Amino acid sequence: MGVLRRTSRDIRSDSRLDVLHAVLSAGETTRNELTQTTGLSPATVATVVGDLIGEGIVVETKVTAGRIGRPTATLAMNAARGRVVGVDVAETYIRAVVFDAALNQLAHAQVARDEHVLDPDSVVEGIGRAVELVLAEGDVRRDEVLGVGVSLPGLVQGPNTVSVVVPNWTWHEVELDRLRERVGMPLVIDNPLKAMATAELWLGRGRYVSSLATINLGTGVGAGVVLERRILRGATNSAGEWGHSLLVLDGRRCRCGRHGCVEAYVGVPGIQQTLREIDPGHALVRLEAQSDFIAALARAADSAEPDSAVDETIARTAYYLGSALADLVAVVNPEVVVLTGWTTWALGDKLLPATRRHLQEQAPGWSARDLLLEISTVEGNSVATGVATTALERYLADVGLLTTQIPIAL
Amino acid sequence: MGVLRRTSRDIRSDSRLDVLHAVLSAGETTRNELTQTTGLSPATVATVVGDLIGEGIVVETKVTAGRIGRPTATLAMNAARGRVVGVDVAETYIRAVVFDAALNQLAHAQVARDEHVLDPDSVVEGIGRAVELVLAEGDVRRDEVLGVGVSLPGLVQGPNTVSVVVPNWTWHEVELDRLRERVGMPLVIDNPLKAMATAELWLGRGRYVSSLATINLGTGVGAGVVLERRILRGATNSAGEWGHSLLVLDGRRCRCGRHGCVEAYVGVPGIQQTLREIDPGHALVRLEAQSDFIAALARAADSAEPDSAVDETIARTAYYLGSALADLVAVVNPEVVVLTGWTTWALGDKLLPATRRHLQEQAPGWSARDLLLEISTVEGNSVATGVATTALERYLADVGLLTTQIPIAL
Ligand SMILES: [Zn+2]
Ligand SMILES: [Zn+2]
Repeated sequence: MGVLRRTSRDIRSDSRLDVLHAVLSAGETTRNELTQTTGLSPATVATVVGDLIGEGIVVETKVTAGRIGRPTATLAMNAARGRVVGVDVAETYIRAVVFDAALNQLAHAQVARDEHVLDPDSVVEGIGRAVELVLAEGDVRRDEVLGVGVSLPGLVQGPNTVSVVVPNWTWHEVELDRLRERVGMPLVIDNPLKAMATAELWLGRGRYVSSLATINLGTGVGAGVVLERRILRGATNSAGEWGHSLLVLDGRRCRCGRHGCVEAYVGVPGIQQTLREIDPGHALVRLEAQSDFIAALARAADSAEPDSAVDETIARTAYYLGSALADLVAVVNPEVVVLTGWTTWALGDKLLPATRRHLQEQAPGWSARDLLLEISTVEGNSVATGVATTALERYLADVGLLTTQIPIAL
Repeated sequence: MGVLRRTSRDIRSDSRLDVLHAVLSAGETTRNELTQTTGLSPATVATVVGDLIGEGIVVETKVTAGRIGRPTATLAMNAARGRVVGVDVAETYIRAVVFDAALNQLAHAQVARDEHVLDPDSVVEGIGRAVELVLAEGDVRRDEVLGVGVSLPGLVQGPNTVSVVVPNWTWHEVELDRLRERVGMPLVIDNPLKAMATAELWLGRGRYVSSLATINLGTGVGAGVVLERRILRGATNSAGEWGHSLLVLDGRRCRCGRHGCVEAYVGVPGIQQTLREIDPGHALVRLEAQSDFIAALARAADSAEPDSAVDETIARTAYYLGSALADLVAVVNPEVVVLTGWTTWALGDKLLPATRRHLQEQAPGWSARDLLLEISTVEGNSVATGVATTALERYLADVGLLTTQIPIAL
């Protein structure tokens, strides 16, 4: 694969990205403030802001006469520059979200998906339909769209190939060509773990630290790793598959086929299994739908009436999660670990204290001493948000502002 | 901790590092060949080679008249430029190795260490003594030494602190000051996992790929991770502690205090434990010294007389190792995994085929499809070699050729 060579163009690109992140974070800011928040020189900030204004990405919203010296211009993202769409292809739904160019959410739409229908045509059609619906919902014309990002589960890359590999669902060039034709707008694809991490990098904790791991907790479980402001992709875009690392050798069978994966314990079916092991006759065991189960578990934990099986299920889940996070911290040693995903939204506050304690106890040496473990502040569907952000990055790369390696631009 | 900013100086530094690596790899080379092997432009190669010759790091060894055009100069590292020393502080010994500036080993020396004597003074004195011995052995004057690197187990970094944290052995500023005074030459310290990875990056497989993990197999077990030609250090220099990630939740007690760590299964005491579980009465169980045990295990496996307990021990160790490597591959997804350390030298060829099979079977998706798993080609004590290389890097940074962030320069 060889070695990625960085050039002075990359450094200009990094400066522009820093300024973009700072403008996004601040909402409204000034050149002076940007000098402070980015650490760049005033001259570099002036040049970069000029570039971004020149392409209509940033605008001066108002100019205030200063008491001394020159008037001060207020800067903001130019929301009107265009629209970007993010699409999260999940197991039972396809959700599309449209954003303005300041990454404010404008509208969303969802189409159901039968997880047992595996033919690529139906998925491609579902994605196309979700995009059409969200554009209609947000009253957005196709020619306003700067780019569309689609998150596909199991997306991997070989040296010269791109494939979507989930059990019984393999896409190659042909299917990707069909997707490009169906969407008919500039398109990028990525996998959900990388999309989540991108959202955290642009809009969450990633703006303030140099390394972090985002942890997705839902039916599936995985991590997005950010090192020095860049997503860790790995040799085949598969880095972050912490959900399929071992918690227990020869333990519970995981849906990936391996035995003892983290996901088999802290994914929702794993949590259902834990309750079943604690009390096979418990009423919640009968709730087969995962979302019903997690909602009921959260309600039971909040209830005035104590339920020791529920409490024990949450305690064991926190033990599994804290232990597995200690492994991730042992290997990657990030500054921050951020929890996200729908289990987090429902149960995160109940899991957090014990998870933090187990993580601190089990992570080696000093690696967790100053570690922050927290719930993500990125709102909404972070997969859709992240992959829409990648679509915006691709647009910024296409107009020459960034040199970001876009994972897969179709 | 903030974000590391890269500048055009870093890019020049990267080019110089590429050329240095290429000259080191080739032994002898030419500017034309360097253009091909590094992918840099002829103009950049000419400038960089000029810089390196200017500082006496590279020399023209001979000039051949070309059939057409200008004569061709043969380039090589300038071995005579000076000497560097690497010191591996292990549990039962301190080993010092002296190299010339082309990283050829000149001499080595070793002093025994009582692993139960934990006072810093005795360790500092042992390091000082080992350095004196190796300089005498190699007939090297102190004023020839460009730098000394010392690998300390458990070395970690906080935001403003450097400490050596191993159970019952904590060093802070005071002890490090004493070490600097005792050595009395330009000094860098690092931890052994990072040192190993540095050796692999400069002298092994790291010259040809952009990502790899080096796996140290000995009494202790750990990984050094290289991403885009740089050592992954993590927030507290603790990245790579894969040896203390879980193989079996609530499994065997590890010497770090946690239960079920990889090290408790594939570290040498773990392998001894595996044999004891298979056949408590086996003759090899009585060999308490770890090096005797591993040597005898290798001999028994090679013997014409079949020993099913030995075969089963090796088979289980390969299963544990392959499973644990699959976890590392799941999270980091490197191009190459390289085995090193004294268990590797003794048992690597016996472990490799089954380990590779288990790794391929258990790593998620495509992540191990094109992965290389191999035994390191870095000869000798790679910890000493790696930390000596870091001392050389520090010298190159001090003279302004590189901008490498040296972990800890005292
Ligand atoms: Zn799995
Ligand atoms: Zn351990």
